[in-house]
Amino acid sequence: MASRRFLDRFRRRGRGRSSHVTLDVSPALTERDEVNVRELVADLLERHGTMTRQAEAEAIAEAYVTLTDDGRYRFLALLARDFWSDAVPVDEAIDAVRAAGDERARRAAEIALRDALTPPAVQVLQLFTALDGGVKLLVEMRGDLLRLGEDDADLADLDRELRGHLATLFDVGLLTLRRITWDAPASLLEKLIAYEAVHAIDSWADLKNRLDSDRRCYAFFHPAMPDEPLVFVEVALTTGVATAMTPLLDEHAPDLDPEAADTAIFYSISSCQPGLAGVNLGNALLKQVVERLTVELPQLRDFVTLSPVPGLRAWLETELRDGTVTEHERELLPAEPARVIARLSDEDWSSDEAIKPALLATCARYLTTVRDGRVIDPVANFHLANGAVLERINWAADPSAAGRERAFGIMVNYRYEPDAIAERAENYATRAEVALSDGIRALLAE
Amino acid sequence: MASRRFLDRFRRRGRGRSSHVTLDVSPALTERDEVNVRELVADLLERHGTMTRQAEAEAIAEAYVTLTDDGRYRFLALLARDFWSDAVPVDEAIDAVRAAGDERARRAAEIALRDALTPPAVQVLQLFTALDGGVKLLVEMRGDLLRLGEDDADLADLDRELRGHLATLFDVGLLTLRRITWDAPASLLEKLIAYEAVHAIDSWADLKNRLDSDRRCYAFFHPAMPDEPLVFVEVALTTGVATAMTPLLDEHAPDLDPEAADTAIFYSISSCQPGLAGVNLGNALLKQVVERLTVELPQLRDFVTLSPVPGLRAWLETELRDGTVTEHERELLPAEPARVIARLSDEDWSSDEAIKPALLATCARYLTTVRDGRVIDPVANFHLANGAVLERINWAADPSAAGRERAFGIMVNYRYEPDAIAERAENYATRAEVALSDGIRALLAE
Amino acid sequence: MASRRFLDRFRRRGRGRSSHVTLDVSPALTERDEVNVRELVADLLERHGTMTRQAEAEAIAEAYVTLTDDGRYRFLALLARDFWSDAVPVDEAIDAVRAAGDERARRAAEIALRDALTPPAVQVLQLFTALDGGVKLLVEMRGDLLRLGEDDADLADLDRELRGHLATLFDVGLLTLRRITWDAPASLLEKLIAYEAVHAIDSWADLKNRLDSDRRCYAFFHPAMPDEPLVFVEVALTTGVATAMTPLLDEHAPDLDPEAADTAIFYSISSCQPGLAGVNLGNALLKQVVERLTVELPQLRDFVTLSPVPGLRAWLETELRDGTVTEHERELLPAEPARVIARLSDEDWSSDEAIKPALLATCARYLTTVRDGRVIDPVANFHLANGAVLERINWAADPSAAGRERAFGIMVNYRYEPDAIAERAENYATRAEVALSDGIRALLAE
Amino acid sequence: MASRRFLDRFRRRGRGRSSHVTLDVSPALTERDEVNVRELVADLLERHGTMTRQAEAEAIAEAYVTLTDDGRYRFLALLARDFWSDAVPVDEAIDAVRAAGDERARRAAEIALRDALTPPAVQVLQLFTALDGGVKLLVEMRGDLLRLGEDDADLADLDRELRGHLATLFDVGLLTLRRITWDAPASLLEKLIAYEAVHAIDSWADLKNRLDSDRRCYAFFHPAMPDEPLVFVEVALTTGVATAMTPLLDEHAPDLDPEAADTAIFYSISSCQPGLAGVNLGNALLKQVVERLTVELPQLRDFVTLSPVPGLRAWLETELRDGTVTEHERELLPAEPARVIARLSDEDWSSDEAIKPALLATCARYLTTVRDGRVIDPVANFHLANGAVLERINWAADPSAAGRERAFGIMVNYRYEPDAIAERAENYATRAEVALSDGIRALLAE
Repeated sequence: MASRRFLDRFRRRGRGRSSHVTLDVSPALTERDEVNVRELVADLLERHGTMTRQAEAEAIAEAYVTLTDDGRYRFLALLARDFWSDAVPVDEAIDAVRAAGDERARRAAEIALRDALTPPAVQVLQLFTALDGGVKLLVEMRGDLLRLGEDDADLADLDRELRGHLATLFDVGLLTLRRITWDAPASLLEKLIAYEAVHAIDSWADLKNRLDSDRRCYAFFHPAMPDEPLVFVEVALTTGVATAMTPLLDEHAPDLDPEAADTAIFYSISSCQPGLAGVNLGNALLKQVVERLTVELPQLRDFVTLSPVPGLRAWLETELRDGTVTEHERELLPAEPARVIARLSDEDWSSDEAIKPALLATCARYLTTVRDGRVIDPVANFHLANGAVLERINWAADPSAAGRERAFGIMVNYRYEPDAIAERAENYATRAEVALSDGIRALLAE
Repeated sequence: MASRRFLDRFRRRGRGRSSHVTLDVSPALTERDEVNVRELVADLLERHGTMTRQAEAEAIAEAYVTLTDDGRYRFLALLARDFWSDAVPVDEAIDAVRAAGDERARRAAEIALRDALTPPAVQVLQLFTALDGGVKLLVEMRGDLLRLGEDDADLADLDRELRGHLATLFDVGLLTLRRITWDAPASLLEKLIAYEAVHAIDSWADLKNRLDSDRRCYAFFHPAMPDEPLVFVEVALTTGVATAMTPLLDEHAPDLDPEAADTAIFYSISSCQPGLAGVNLGNALLKQVVERLTVELPQLRDFVTLSPVPGLRAWLETELRDGTVTEHERELLPAEPARVIARLSDEDWSSDEAIKPALLATCARYLTTVRDGRVIDPVANFHLANGAVLERINWAADPSAAGRERAFGIMVNYRYEPDAIAERAENYATRAEVALSDGIRALLAE
Repeated sequence: MASRRFLDRFRRRGRGRSSHVTLDVSPALTERDEVNVRELVADLLERHGTMTRQAEAEAIAEAYVTLTDDGRYRFLALLARDFWSDAVPVDEAIDAVRAAGDERARRAAEIALRDALTPPAVQVLQLFTALDGGVKLLVEMRGDLLRLGEDDADLADLDRELRGHLATLFDVGLLTLRRITWDAPASLLEKLIAYEAVHAIDSWADLKNRLDSDRRCYAFFHPAMPDEPLVFVEVALTTGVATAMTPLLDEHAPDLDPEAADTAIFYSISSCQPGLAGVNLGNALLKQVVERLTVELPQLRDFVTLSPVPGLRAWLETELRDGTVTEHERELLPAEPARVIARLSDEDWSSDEAIKPALLATCARYLTTVRDGRVIDPVANFHLANGAVLERINWAADPSAAGRERAFGIMVNYRYEPDAIAERAENYATRAEVALSDGIRALLAE
Repeated sequence: MASRRFLDRFRRRGRGRSSHVTLDVSPALTERDEVNVRELVADLLERHGTMTRQAEAEAIAEAYVTLTDDGRYRFLALLARDFWSDAVPVDEAIDAVRAAGDERARRAAEIALRDALTPPAVQVLQLFTALDGGVKLLVEMRGDLLRLGEDDADLADLDRELRGHLATLFDVGLLTLRRITWDAPASLLEKLIAYEAVHAIDSWADLKNRLDSDRRCYAFFHPAMPDEPLVFVEVALTTGVATAMTPLLDEHAPDLDPEAADTAIFYSISSCQPGLAGVNLGNALLKQVVERLTVELPQLRDFVTLSPVPGLRAWLETELRDGTVTEHERELLPAEPARVIARLSDEDWSSDEAIKPALLATCARYLTTVRDGRVIDPVANFHLANGAVLERINWAADPSAAGRERAFGIMVNYRYEPDAIAERAENYATRAEVALSDGIRALLAE
C-alpha cells in the first residue's frame, strides 16, 4: 500500500528512524495477537494526526489479508464486540436529549446521541477506504463476513454497517457502465468466464460467440476497482422472443444483423462480487442497458429476459411430500405424488412430455407464490421488483444438467415495458402485486 | 438526467401514458411551491419502488437547479426543518433502548434508535447521488448551504450531514491523482486559471510557464466529475530553497533540467470546489505528490513550500491598535505604534527595509500564536497539521499587490521531512506543538 | 535518436569498444567538413549491414540539424551534385536495353536501367526515414530545400525526389483525421494559433470561439508526427450561407444548436508544414470532413466556403497600369484609372461603395481568368480543382487589414455539391472549365 | 470504402444522378471482364481529377476482393503485362539522354527517362494506398502475387515493384512497437495463436503462460492496420541461458521476478503477414526490443535466442544419400549411412543418445555451410545477418513432433552482444563470415 512503500523508500535511503507502524500476527490470530490488534485499534481511534492513523489502519489491513478464515473470523468478531458503542456515553447522550429545553437544544443533543451510537468499529472500516486497495479490501471483508458470520448476531450488526458503507461507495452514481466485446482485455474476459453464474461458459470459443456482433454484454465497474466487473448482463439480439437457450449458445449459428433485430433477450445476469450481496446493482444495470440499446438500436421493440427458475425443483419436491399440490395439479400428474417424487430425480423422466402440463401449471403457481411480501423465487422477485411482467413459461428451454437440475429445463420470459416499469415496480413493492401476461393468467386460471 | 430522457424518448415514440414525474416551481420558490415540494419529498420518502423514487428525486433536483439564491435558501430550509427526525419515534426508540433486557436486545435497540435519529432529509440527499450529474449537484448544493446558510442553526445541521456524505463520496480512496501538463485539454487548463487562489494566473503564457519542464502540477479528480479538478498544487523544481516568488513566475527564466534539481518548492495549493470546504483533500494531495516526485526524481532532497501568510496584516493592525505588541517588537518599530498604524496602509512604507526587523519578529510571533488548539494563520495551520516544520520567514518575497496587502510581501517556507511528518502532525494535533527550525526559534528568542 | 542512445548506454556501462559512428562538423560546413560528409555518405552507400548503415545515417542526420542555413545549403548541394546518378553505368544500362533480344530480356534490362537512374542521394533520404524522428527531419529538410534552393536546378532535382518520397509517406491512406475541440491539448492548440494562415487568431478567447459547439475544426495527422497538425480546416455551422467574416469571428455571438444548422461554412484552410508544399492534402481533408459532417449532422444541406481572394489587389493594379481593364469596368470606375491606382492604396477609399460595382465585376473576371490551364488565383484554383462551383462574390466581407490589403475586403463563396464534385473536378482538370453560379454568370455577362 | 459509401449516402438521399463508378466482374474474371478491367484501368491512368481517379481505383479494388484465386491471377497478369512501360516512349527518352548537350540537360533527360521506365501498373498500386483499407489490400495483393505468381517472370516484375512500395509504406520509421500482455484485446491475442509459426500455441492457457510476468511479447504495428500485428517476438526472462523449450512452455512453472533475471531468451519470432515477405522487420524488432529491455531491466546481461534449425533433417538426408558426410561424422554415426537414412524417419531412434555426437557435429557443419554468400539455414542466416554469434547447439531441446521432425529436437542459441552487433553484421554481409563461440569452434575442429 502506497504510503507504507513511501515510508519504506525513505527508510531504505537511510533517512533515520521512522514512525512506521507494524502489526505482526500469526495467520490464525492467537489470543496474544488479539491483544495486539485490540491495542492498535484502540490507539488508532484516539489518534488525531491523519498520517499516523492511516499508517495504523494500513498495518491492520495488511495483517488482515494474511489471516486464515479462522483468523479473520476472530478479527471480525473482535471488531464487532470490543469496538461497539459503549453504554455509558450512550446513556448520557440519551439523558441530554431528554433534558433538552427547546427544539434547537434537542436537535443538537440528538446529533450527539447519534454520534455516540456510531460504533467505533465503523470508523475503522471507514479508514480502510482511503488505503491503496482499500475499497477492494472492504468488499473482500464483507464477503468474509457473509461467509463466516452466519448465526452470529454481532457479526450481523457489523455486516449491516459495512453493507451500508459499501452501498454509499458503490452508489450507481459512481459506477461506470462499459460494453464488453471480444476486443476487451483477455484478463477481463477470463473473469466473465469465472463469474458467469447462470449458463457456464465452456471455453473461449463459447465466450466469443456470446460477444458476437448480434450480442451485447455490459458490466458495471467501480473507479477504485477498474479491472473488476461488479455485475454483468448478456444480451442476444433476435427477431422475436427467444424461448430456449440452445440456439443462443450455438457457436455455429449465423450472426444476425443488429439493425434487423426487433428484440433484446437478456439471458444472463451475474454478480461478480460476493461482498456486494444486498447492494442492488442489477436493477440499475438493466435500466441503463435498456437505455443504451434504445439509443443505439432504436428499432428494438421488445426487451425480454430468458431466465432460470432456480428454486422450482426443491419447492416442488416439498409440495409433493407435504401434499400441498392443488387438485388441478394432481390431476395433471402422470402418477401418484409419491411415485412422482421417487422418479423426479430421474432427469429423463422429469423432463418427459407427459409431465409437462403438471410442471407448467405448478411452475406458474410457484412463481406467483408470495411470502413475506415477495415471491419466493429469487429471480422472479428480482425482475418483478424491477417492474417486469411475468410473460411466459417455456418447456425444455435449458437442456443443460444445471438447467434440468434446478427446474426440469424450464425457463421463463420476463418482459420489460418501459412505460409500465415504474408503476409495476411500485405495485409489487407496496402490494406484492405480480404483473402477469394473459398467457400466465390463463395457466393459473385452469 | 438519464432516466428522464429515457422516459421522454419512449413517450415521444408514442408508447402511451407514463408515470413520469414533474415538479414545476417558480425561481424564487413561492409558498405554494413549497407546499408542492413538501408533498413530493414526503411521497418519495414513502415510496418503495426504486424507479419511481428516482424519478421523483430527479424532479426535485431538476427543480432545484432552476432556483435563485432566495429559492434555494427556502428549499434548503424546508429540508432542514420539515424533514428532520421526529421526536415521537425517537422517544419511543429511546424507551426501547432503556427497556432492553440484555446486551443483544440493547444492540438491536440502539441500531433502531440510530435509524430513528437519521433525518429524512439525509435520505433525500443520498438519493441525489445516483442521479446523472448527482454528485456534482451535491457539491453545488453544499456550496449553496455555506454561502446562504450563515447563522442558521438548522441549515448548519443539514450542512453537517451533507459534509459527512461528501466526505465519504470524496474519500481519497476514490480519487485519482493526475499530473497536469501543457498537453492537458485547454478546457481543463482554463479552470486552473479560474481557480488559482494564491498567485493569480495572468495569461496563458503565465500558465505555460507554470507547466514547464522544471515544474509539476498535480490535481485530484473524482470519477463522477472527471473534468473538474478538486484541488491542485503547483511545484517548482529548483536547486536550493526558493525564498521569493518573482523568479518562479518569470516566464523568461531558463528551464532547469529536472534531474539536476535537489528541491521541490510547493508554491501554490488551490481548492477548486467551495462545496468541498472542510473535506480535507490538501493533506492527501501533498502526500501523494511527494511520493510521486520521490519515485520520479529520486535525487530530490528537500520538499519545501513557499507559502503566503494571509492573516498577518489584519492581525498586526489589531495588535498595534490594542497595544499588545511585545516590548521587543516595540523597540524594533521605526515609529510610535499609532503612527505605524497610520502608515501601514501606505504600501511603500510598510514594505520598507526600516520596518523589516519589526515585521519579521511580529510575523514569527503571529505564526506561532495558538488559539483553541491551533495556530491562527490558516495556511500555517494547514501545513503544521500536515506535519511540516515552520522553516523560514522571507522578506520581500511576494511583491504583488495581493502579497503586499495580505502580509507586506512576506512569505514563509514550511519544510516536509518525510520521516518526521507523522510524529509532528501528531504532536501538533494533540498538543498544538509547533515544529520550528533553529532560525525561527532564534527569531522568537530575541 | 534511439539506436545511438542505445549504443551510448552500453558504452557507458563499460561494455568495451563500439562501432559507433560520429560526424563532427562546424555549423557552416567547411570544405574540410564537406570532405568528411562525402566520405561518410560514400561509405554508407557501400555498406551492407543494416546496423552500420543506420548508425551512419544517424550520424549524418545529427550533423545536419546542427547546421546553419548556409551549412544546410552546402550539404544539400553536395548531395544533389556528388551523389547523383553516374553517366557510365547509365550508359551501359542503356546499351543493355538496346541489345535486349526479346521482350523478357528487355523488361529485365529496363528495370536495371531504372535502378541505374535512381540517384544515390535518394537512397540516403530513404535511409533517414527509419531513424527516430526521421520523418519529421525529412519534412524539415524539404522545407530547407524550398527555402534555400531557389534557382538551383540541381537542388530542384533533389527537391523533386524528396517531394515524391514524402508524397508516399504522407499518402492520405496513412493519415488520421482528428476533430480538434477546446478539449484538445493546449500544446496542440497553440500550434493552430501559430499556423492559421487566413484569418489570424488573436487570442485564446478567439480560438475558443472558433471551437465552440457550433463550430468544427478538423486536421490531418501523420503517425510519425502525432503532435503536429499537417493541415486543418475551420468550419462554422450556420443557417443560410455566411457572406462575411465578422459574425463568424464575433466571440460574443450566441451559439447555434448544431442540429438546427443547414449549412457548413468552410472559412479557413491552413497548411502547417512548409516542407509538405505540393503534397496535396487539402483536397482529401475537405472530402473527409464533408463525409463526417454528413454522417454526424444529416440535416446539413449546403457545404460552402467563405474564402479570400489573395491575388486580387496585385492583379488589379497591374491591369490598371497596363490599361487592360475592360470597357465595362472602365465605365464602372468612379475615376480615371490613373487616379484609381493612386487612390487604391488608400484603404478607406478602395473599400468605398462607389467603387463596389467596378471591383465586383473585376473580381469576377479575375477569378475566371485562366492561364496555363488553371485560374490564376491560387485559392480559386484549389477549390475549382476540387470540384467546387464559384458561387458568389461578397462585398465588405473581410474588414481586417489583411483582408482589405489583399482584396479590398472582398471574399468569395465556393459551393461543394457532392453529386457534381467529381464531374466538375474532371472538367476543370481537363478543359480548365470554371463552374459558375447564375449570379457570377450574370456578373460576367454585364 | 469511405468515399463510395459517401456517394451512396447522397444518392440514397435522392440528390440526383452521380458520377459513381462501378465495375461488375464474375469471380473468375472472364475474358469479357478483362476487357472491362483494362478499359477502366486505362481510363484511370488518363484521368486528372483526383476524385474520379479515386472512385475508379475503388471500383477496381472492390472488384479485386471478390475474385477467386484464378481471377486474381488473371487480374495481376493483366496488370503486369498490359500496363508495363511502353517501348516507344522509353526509346525516345533514351534518345533524348543520348542527345543531351550538357550535364544539366542530361540530368533532365535522365529524369524523364526514369519516368518513362516507371510502369503504369505501379501508378495503379500507388492509387490503392489512399483507399480506405488500401494498405491492407496491398499487403493481401502481395500475398496473392507470391502465392500465385510462381514461375511467371512478369508477375515477378510486378512483385518487385509492389515489394518496393510496401517497403516504403512499412518503413520502420512508420511502425509502432507495442508490448502485448494478457491485458491485450482477446481479438488481438487470438491472432498470436493463429500466427505463431515456431512453437504452436495450444490453448489460451498456453498463451497466458507466454504472457506471464517473467515473459515479454512485443509486436510491430502499422498505423493503417492498427489491429494486425506484423511480426512478434516472444521473450522469456531467466537466470542463465535456457537450452530447451520444455521449461519455457511449462504452464505450471513458477514465475521468476523479472528484476532477478539476468538473461532474455528470444524463443520465437513469427511473421504475421505473408504479403510482407522480404520486407525485413525482424531485424528492427529485435533491436528495439533489446533497447526496451535494456532500459526497463538494466540488470539483464545476456540477450540470447533459443532457435529452431528448420532445414537440418532435409539437408542431412541429402548428405547421407549423396555420401557427402565427412570422415569424422561417419565415424560418429552408430550405423552405416544407408541404415541411418532408413532409420532416421523413426523418430525414437533419431533422437537417441547414440546418434547425438554425429548429429551435433553435422548440425555445426550445416549451420556454417555457406552458399551464395549466406548460410543455408534461414534462421541462422537471419540471426547472423543481424549480427549475432552462433553460440551453442542443444540436444533434446525441442521434444515436440515439429521440433523432432525438422531437427531431431535440436535447437540453437544465438547470442546478441550489443557492442559487437554492427561489426559482425557487416562481416557477415560482406564476407559471409560466421561468428562462432569457442564451443562451436571446438565442435567444428574435431
